[in-house]
Amino acid sequence: MMSVYYEEILKESEGNCHIQNISGDVTGIVNKSGIKNGIVTVFSIGSTAGITTLEYEPGLLSDIPAMLEKLIPSFANYKHNDTWGDGNGHSHLRSALIKTSLTVPLVNKELVLGTWQQIVFMDFDNRHRTRRIAVQVMGEK
Amino acid sequence: MMSVYYEEILKESEGNCHIQNISGDVTGIVNKSGIKNGIVTVFSIGSTAGITTLEYEPGLLSDIPAMLEKLIPSFANYKHNDTWGDGNGHSHLRSALIKTSLTVPLVNKELVLGTWQQIVFMDFDNRHRTRRIAVQVMGEK
Amino acid sequence: MMSVYYEEILKESEGNCHIQNISGDVTGIVNKSGIKNGIVTVFSIGSTAGITTLEYEPGLLSDIPAMLEKLIPSFANYKHNDTWGDGNGHSHLRSALIKTSLTVPLVNKELVLGTWQQIVFMDFDNRHRTRRIAVQVMGEK
Repeated sequence: MMSVYYEEILKESEGNCHIQNISGDVTGIVNKSGIKNGIVTVFSIGSTAGITTLEYEPGLLSDIPAMLEKLIPSFANYKHNDTWGDGNGHSHLRSALIKTSLTVPLVNKELVLGTWQQIVFMDFDNRHRTRRIAVQVMGEK
Repeated sequence: MMSVYYEEILKESEGNCHIQNISGDVTGIVNKSGIKNGIVTVFSIGSTAGITTLEYEPGLLSDIPAMLEKLIPSFANYKHNDTWGDGNGHSHLRSALIKTSLTVPLVNKELVLGTWQQIVFMDFDNRHRTRRIAVQVMGEK
Repeated sequence: MMSVYYEEILKESEGNCHIQNISGDVTGIVNKSGIKNGIVTVFSIGSTAGITTLEYEPGLLSDIPAMLEKLIPSFANYKHNDTWGDGNGHSHLRSALIKTSLTVPLVNKELVLGTWQQIVFMDFDNRHRTRRIAVQVMGEK
């Protein structure tokens, strides 16, 4: 029987490229859903964060912010900052680039991920916030 | 009852990083679908455009092209341009990076988006075109 | 009737930004699934590769590695390399940026792709490997 199950993850985030491993949270929601085969869409609600996969180890948690600082510096002259004065133009650009959605196949009640591959939430904003991450599980029970 | 509903959005695009807010178009299709809970996949047909989310305000509409011009300049020496002579190597590279697909959860007939988070179509090509954007809605009515 | 069909693609990959056109493989799995309308999620298992769309022609197969080498050089000082000594920090960063998932609408048994738009697997790792790519087809028969 095909079924849909929705739940949100709430995360306290420090911003400034804070990267959190949310694989466990997503797995917990998948387990509650009772869905066996299908897909799981993980979506960051808001336009200054992103969802991707990463080997969650300390080296990369330092390399990712360094890479983004090089590609999209925090303190360049962004027109967005002239509009709102909140100084987070870079956060919006990083989010548009990394994107806020990730869909992962679900097979026999397991997310199809590599051994070291985690689902991560990246917060590019420049301040502390409580963040909402949408998880939609859809498939057959 | 699980259901699938497909429709395409047609957009006149100026190219050259023209960014259009298609949230209203996607919402209209979701409404027609009658589907209540599930997912919506928005897909740019063609390899010189992209789909992502963005706060659709004038500052960022200027910052995004500036960012892409820095990361993937329009007038560098791309081998693609030697092959076809159409001068849009940068358009293909930007599309491969931003990617042409975005999946958004649908909950109680609403797209799960942040208050300022819009679904945008970005055209990286170097000329005016009519563009097709695929919208697949799938879920339970 | 709604249905889910799962299969994996195995690819010998040379690594070092080896780009392979997997549209034919995905189409073959879609055909076997018997599913007519829905979505197809293509997911690279492992955190040093990526999935996107590309016009698969020799010029771009050279331009994509050049672009990534500029954005995320192979031989910069990555903390990841200090952790593991495997020298593939750039591979993880490129994978986190390009991302490992792509969802494509399926309409009347056809993937909704542009004429020149192919689904490609990009291997950013620095060595030869056999790679697994997950393909989840979901929709109505």
